[in-house]
Amino acid sequence: MATPAHVKGVTRTLAEYVVKAKYEDLPQAVRKEGIRTLVNTVGVAVGGSHHPTVDIALSALAPFFGPAQASVLGRSERLDILNAALINGISSHVLDFDDTHLGTIIHAGGPVMAAILALSEFSPTRGTDFLNALVLGIEVACRVGAAVYPDHYDQGWHITGSAGVFGAAAASGKLIGLSERQMAWALGLAASQPVGLRESFGSMNKSFNPGRAAQNGLTSALLAAKNYTSSDQMIEARRGWANTLSTKQDYSQITDGLGHRYEAALNTYKPFACGIVVHPAIEAAIQLRNEYKISPDQIQEIQLRANPLVLELAGNKTPQLGLQGKFSIYHALAVAMVEGGGGEKQFSDRAVGDPVVLQVRGRVSPVADPSIQPEQADLAILLKDGRKLHKFIKQVVGSVEVPMSDSALEAKVIDLAEGILPEAQTRALLENCWRVESIEDAGAIARTAAVV
Amino acid sequence: MATPAHVKGVTRTLAEYVVKAKYEDLPQAVRKEGIRTLVNTVGVAVGGSHHPTVDIALSALAPFFGPAQASVLGRSERLDILNAALINGISSHVLDFDDTHLGTIIHAGGPVMAAILALSEFSPTRGTDFLNALVLGIEVACRVGAAVYPDHYDQGWHITGSAGVFGAAAASGKLIGLSERQMAWALGLAASQPVGLRESFGSMNKSFNPGRAAQNGLTSALLAAKNYTSSDQMIEARRGWANTLSTKQDYSQITDGLGHRYEAALNTYKPFACGIVVHPAIEAAIQLRNEYKISPDQIQEIQLRANPLVLELAGNKTPQLGLQGKFSIYHALAVAMVEGGGGEKQFSDRAVGDPVVLQVRGRVSPVADPSIQPEQADLAILLKDGRKLHKFIKQVVGSVEVPMSDSALEAKVIDLAEGILPEAQTRALLENCWRVESIEDAGAIARTAAVV
Repeated sequence: MATPAHVKGVTRTLAEYVVKAKYEDLPQAVRKEGIRTLVNTVGVAVGGSHHPTVDIALSALAPFFGPAQASVLGRSERLDILNAALINGISSHVLDFDDTHLGTIIHAGGPVMAAILALSEFSPTRGTDFLNALVLGIEVACRVGAAVYPDHYDQGWHITGSAGVFGAAAASGKLIGLSERQMAWALGLAASQPVGLRESFGSMNKSFNPGRAAQNGLTSALLAAKNYTSSDQMIEARRGWANTLSTKQDYSQITDGLGHRYEAALNTYKPFACGIVVHPAIEAAIQLRNEYKISPDQIQEIQLRANPLVLELAGNKTPQLGLQGKFSIYHALAVAMVEGGGGEKQFSDRAVGDPVVLQVRGRVSPVADPSIQPEQADLAILLKDGRKLHKFIKQVVGSVEVPMSDSALEAKVIDLAEGILPEAQTRALLENCWRVESIEDAGAIARTAAVV
Repeated sequence: MATPAHVKGVTRTLAEYVVKAKYEDLPQAVRKEGIRTLVNTVGVAVGGSHHPTVDIALSALAPFFGPAQASVLGRSERLDILNAALINGISSHVLDFDDTHLGTIIHAGGPVMAAILALSEFSPTRGTDFLNALVLGIEVACRVGAAVYPDHYDQGWHITGSAGVFGAAAASGKLIGLSERQMAWALGLAASQPVGLRESFGSMNKSFNPGRAAQNGLTSALLAAKNYTSSDQMIEARRGWANTLSTKQDYSQITDGLGHRYEAALNTYKPFACGIVVHPAIEAAIQLRNEYKISPDQIQEIQLRANPLVLELAGNKTPQLGLQGKFSIYHALAVAMVEGGGGEKQFSDRAVGDPVVLQVRGRVSPVADPSIQPEQADLAILLKDGRKLHKFIKQVVGSVEVPMSDSALEAKVIDLAEGILPEAQTRALLENCWRVESIEDAGAIARTAAVV
């Protein structure tokens, strides 16, 4: 029986929950969503693993790495677990293609997974324990974030790093087997190390934030395991985390319904590798293309009615680089019509310079219409033969209401891993993720995701 | 000629200053204070190096250390430079005996020194370059802190870790030779990694903060050196560090008078290893004791008139542990009379249990008097022979106005290093610090401070 939070304090209540929560307690739907988060996070980390951001971080820190204890996803290096957590956390976020907890816009998968994937290569970890720790870590990150969102985010914190660090600490501490007191200290040490400001968006610093959060959370748990002390009221104290880092503190978001209501079950995944406002239009384009088997040379004009945010945030008419293409509704619609997808390849430098895509891009005519919601798109395609095809997307895929299907998630991972891992290995990796509950050694996940 | 800050931005102005500032530009008095900061910081780090806090941090993280590149002060381990920075930064603060910039109450010596001492063992560094980097690092930490102090501190940040990280990044970046743009990125990455909340005070977490700040600042500089990008307006942007972490932003504190006015010249050092409110009383006691050669058995009563803060913050009548003795005016006066000092030994578990000290402690009678300022003490000692001896301390030693003398600093270091380093080695270490401007290889400082 748990002591009520008003008696025990927020930090200790949360610590007690994490220490006591068993895999067996997790509802089936929560387990399933945890596995889907794992699949998505491993996939985006493999996909991002050769980004220049990752290359640079590895080369800058290589002279200081410890023993080869843990894999770098998508690569052949093996690092000490703390640096592996850093690098895999960076890879998970660098494509902006990771999971999103829409209630807090935390991308919790990266910080949490990067910490415990490394740990599970260092100490033998059963798959069920791994999944339990993953879910608990995401739960902790999202609950702590919810206590201060949106004020904390509006103020300037990159909440994925500033709240994600709690998730990494909790998940790591769970696998290490911390006592309740040690878990409170781990959360306290994590609270001392929030990472990331929104001003970093647009630079490599952005993906550093979840990476460092993973590393800081893991460090916190390792220290607490040896009784390195902290306050055990670090979240809620007068000069603790929530009061210092936010003007809003709603501790009920942290302590209410622990073990009953699961934020981790509300995680979502992006189907397309670009700004989320562009997603409904891409979905409409792909559906029409496939339905009518439209080839680029048939297209006379692409008419889009979209929420005004789309042109505000993705109004770039002539992107030169893949990264710019991610915020161009013109490119996104053109490439979706030409290639039938919206993955990382469709937002590469190659794709934005492709002559066929460029030709179609010139035929895209978007208009802003406030009656269209951000999760909607109204697309019409005029063909040269005079036909006008129409598609209205009422609710984009990738939301809680209309989630990506398992097979779409799997296809996303396969697409991301192409050219990085042999396809047979990607399938083995996916298999390890989907059946994580039945594997004896969760370290196999990271090993299957690394280049051998 | 520097571009004005209003044109160039705060972060880039600061970066430009750090990149361009030469050792030759430093006024003599600033160089001297830098050296005194070095002496004090090395001394307190050696003195703190065997504290359980340090033992635990080392044992928790040992499995993950990289190559043996840098010394741990006061100990025989050799670690990769990032972990050496962490551990030496912890040691520097664990006794609460480090330097204080009174305008911001930042203890900048630890974070800055721990970063560049490690770096100077890794890459050959001339003593003049080391001293220049040290001064610039302290300058940056104190200026960034001053822009947000006191609001930032009142809000809950342990400013030594949250602003100290900028100092560690600037000093490390200076030694690495970053370009102006890279230096701005290093400051930006540092801004993303503030460490420490005041709620951690009283736990091991407190000294973790400057240690992690040292490590984070050094990491930031190493990443920036390989062109790992950040924003170059991270301090002042709408969602940058100052706006996100403070309700006050006075950027003139950062940019005004760079190269003319030196916060680094205003650093101070504690003569006694205890709460600063107790210092004036200890000084009065030691002066009377030495002047009149008072032995414990002569003492009838010790009457103190002190600022009310003294009894409020240090009113513990019966401390059981050395750490409690640091906040007991009763113990502090008794041990000062018996042993003639106020060093770490006088605030050990041994000292608070010493029978002679206990006997004198029972004779201490403090009264609060608002007419006595915090930096003052009015002490009277009644001897059994009827004499009444009196001492009024108008301004305690250890302030900017009445600094500790060089010889008192040296005695402090010798006392702290006793039992940790052989005395001849301590003298060699002091020699390396005092003559840092003439040594070719600044790595010698850390090596002389380590157990061989």
